[in-house]
Amino acid sequence: MDKNIPYKTYLEESEMPKQWYNVRADMKNKPAPLLNPATHKPMTAEELGAVFCDELVKQELDNENAYIDIPTEILDFYKMYRPSPLVRAYCLEKVLDTPAKIYYKFEGNNTSGSHKLNSAIAQAYYAKKQGLKGVTTETGAGQWGTALSMATAYLGLECKVFMVKVSYEQKPFRREVMRTYGAEVTPSPSETTEVGRKILEAHPGTTGSLGCAISEAVEVATHTEGYRYVLGSVLNQVLLHQSVIGLESKAAFEKLGVKPDIIIGCAGGGSNLGGLISPFMGQKLRGEADYRFIAVEPASCPSLTRGRYAYDYCDTGMVCPLAKMYTLGSGFIPSANHAGGLRYHGMSSTISQLYDDKLMEAVSVEQTAVFEAAQKFARIEGILPAPESSHAIRVAIDEALKCKETGEEKTILFGLTGTGYFDMVAYQKFNDGLMTDYIPTDEELEKSFAGLPKID
Amino acid sequence: MDKNIPYKTYLEESEMPKQWYNVRADMKNKPAPLLNPATHKPMTAEELGAVFCDELVKQELDNENAYIDIPTEILDFYKMYRPSPLVRAYCLEKVLDTPAKIYYKFEGNNTSGSHKLNSAIAQAYYAKKQGLKGVTTETGAGQWGTALSMATAYLGLECKVFMVKVSYEQKPFRREVMRTYGAEVTPSPSETTEVGRKILEAHPGTTGSLGCAISEAVEVATHTEGYRYVLGSVLNQVLLHQSVIGLESKAAFEKLGVKPDIIIGCAGGGSNLGGLISPFMGQKLRGEADYRFIAVEPASCPSLTRGRYAYDYCDTGMVCPLAKMYTLGSGFIPSANHAGGLRYHGMSSTISQLYDDKLMEAVSVEQTAVFEAAQKFARIEGILPAPESSHAIRVAIDEALKCKETGEEKTILFGLTGTGYFDMVAYQKFNDGLMTDYIPTDEELEKSFAGLPKID
Repeated sequence: MDKNIPYKTYLEESEMPKQWYNVRADMKNKPAPLLNPATHKPMTAEELGAVFCDELVKQELDNENAYIDIPTEILDFYKMYRPSPLVRAYCLEKVLDTPAKIYYKFEGNNTSGSHKLNSAIAQAYYAKKQGLKGVTTETGAGQWGTALSMATAYLGLECKVFMVKVSYEQKPFRREVMRTYGAEVTPSPSETTEVGRKILEAHPGTTGSLGCAISEAVEVATHTEGYRYVLGSVLNQVLLHQSVIGLESKAAFEKLGVKPDIIIGCAGGGSNLGGLISPFMGQKLRGEADYRFIAVEPASCPSLTRGRYAYDYCDTGMVCPLAKMYTLGSGFIPSANHAGGLRYHGMSSTISQLYDDKLMEAVSVEQTAVFEAAQKFARIEGILPAPESSHAIRVAIDEALKCKETGEEKTILFGLTGTGYFDMVAYQKFNDGLMTDYIPTDEELEKSFAGLPKID
Repeated sequence: MDKNIPYKTYLEESEMPKQWYNVRADMKNKPAPLLNPATHKPMTAEELGAVFCDELVKQELDNENAYIDIPTEILDFYKMYRPSPLVRAYCLEKVLDTPAKIYYKFEGNNTSGSHKLNSAIAQAYYAKKQGLKGVTTETGAGQWGTALSMATAYLGLECKVFMVKVSYEQKPFRREVMRTYGAEVTPSPSETTEVGRKILEAHPGTTGSLGCAISEAVEVATHTEGYRYVLGSVLNQVLLHQSVIGLESKAAFEKLGVKPDIIIGCAGGGSNLGGLISPFMGQKLRGEADYRFIAVEPASCPSLTRGRYAYDYCDTGMVCPLAKMYTLGSGFIPSANHAGGLRYHGMSSTISQLYDDKLMEAVSVEQTAVFEAAQKFARIEGILPAPESSHAIRVAIDEALKCKETGEEKTILFGLTGTGYFDMVAYQKFNDGLMTDYIPTDEELEKSFAGLPKID
């Protein structure tokens, strides 16, 4: 054990961040704006306001202000489950026999089971403040839907969740948590929306996808009085709220007098990764410090490592604005990979731009290797990780083992975004030796890229 | 918000307890000794050593030493998931509009989902230290089995868990967590033991009980080279290990300059309750301070409030020592109450003696009222509680509401022993309005009491 470095570091309440950090303010090349799918012109605040709460639209479009105050009500809610601990993985280091120093920021100690609550409470708060009645959203793995249900229950808002049908059926307990928090949960695609009926007609028997569920949730939000739509990842505003992860990590490291060398996060839509790296990336952008940033994605859904950087639809029904991002094409159907939260075809525009500017790296990993790391981590560090988070664990272990070869004493930080308590079907498959890997072929990807919209 | 009282108080590593506290040392009337079921004579250390690890036998029989050092290896393991937070329930207070100050000690932030890990690591450690190969145990709700699997995986011991059949079938995910940690999980009663075969012959189609599973686990431990049996509750040694809950709570209160008036814990076998109250009870026994202690049990399994204080069998197969305790009779079959962990027919001898000496109170609560409290708490405080823990929440809320009537500013502490992530079948029943209450009749209890052994 290093002297003066405890297993877990918690900030005091007085040390917790009072402002979110907006990395776009320090980016030379700003992320490309959202486009109106009909006109291909940048979405105006007014157009976005039909879908999102006004204050969130402001945050979405704000590329200038580096710091945005966190409202007191949100700070109070944060105090119920934050600060999250910055953990020194002493036991893992010992078992790996590595000179590397491994830290993780653990966001799973709340009932939603993940970091998603950080943005859910913010988005629900602004909806409440605007006098709205309720919000709609979609959920895949269920972490975002749970987080939003918790936030709306706390604030007394209504909440309608479209849950990808395959998850709805395979994860009945996730559904029950949301119901316990008063949310209305509908399997998607459903007969309750026009876009849902269209999709069901075109693809009878489909088990749904995030892209379908987004389309349905947006339709209901825009057709219901006093409702808006909220999204748990991809958007700039979400990365802004999630910056609390990175800000707390940075403050804790400063308290310990430690500087990380490598920062690793799993990447689906980019919410956790963006939040974790933002303040460190800000330092890099301002030339104050350097870090290696590594995005880890599943080999089955490799948007950064094998996708195109182009404007694409965010949803299957093509009702949402177009976003410029690393994408596999909105028609890409990820395989039945269990890391539900990382199955999105695209990637946050902010992360995409940072990656395109070579400010960060990306790697893809296969599922069985991920679950091997997950099981090892669970047994050594005592936390059963979510499959999503385990992508980051895999690469953190790999980097620590490289240090063992080279003898370098690097300091590694990774984001442990959540727990796997609702992912036991996947763990069972792994325990029974039935888990397989899947990597899309170049032909499959080319076919999907052909569906990308033509934007001048 | 009270000035200087944060939402959550974490001790520093240096402030964490280095010794467990043994409340028996301060009890005037010691808990009655375990008896040999054949001779009705007090069990000797040698006899107990056939079933339990030597060091744990020593702890079991030690009524003299008030403080027992926690070995460094266990302290290190504790640092991975402890200290647990002492939480001020500001949001609950506000919604209840009570002058009471409500605190809870939250033990659910670890993968076992409960306080059970505190004793699991201790028992596994002593087994390892004795050079044993593995341990056996039983589990009902699954929290203890999970905790033990985590501890044995960490230490590299084998672990065989007999899981009450109804739980094995209804909670496949609990089973998978244990398997992920490398445990061998067998539904009980099983064909793998003599006592299991006997029970199956007498009660074909039985879905099992804790009492049956204990008998099977003890049989395997005593018939397998290098194995011992470990138990998650009831025993003196378990209360000793769980005293870490109360010691941390007391240290945190002292740091805050606060003294609780009422301390509330749910009571099944007594492990959490005993651990939480021990150091405070010690003060009361020594005349240094006074507290009200309230044990909360389910109305469907009311050992303290309606049981007899008598020697009884601890298990269905009658292979274990006899314990003097408040009991409903070892033949009592609790209804299909979902608060699995509180369904034991007896109660820790230490708690039983303290209760008989009128040093503490007990109340019983009905299941639907418990789940109403659980849902309310989840929505207000953001933590989905275990059904067991929710018994304590129910009474904490009731006491806070009494304060509202009287205007008294009492300080209430309750033990929030765990999370309900694996109890969603019960929550679903509640969400669907299908949950019912059950209270055994006097006739049922009398019939059960008739089976109590005759001890001079």
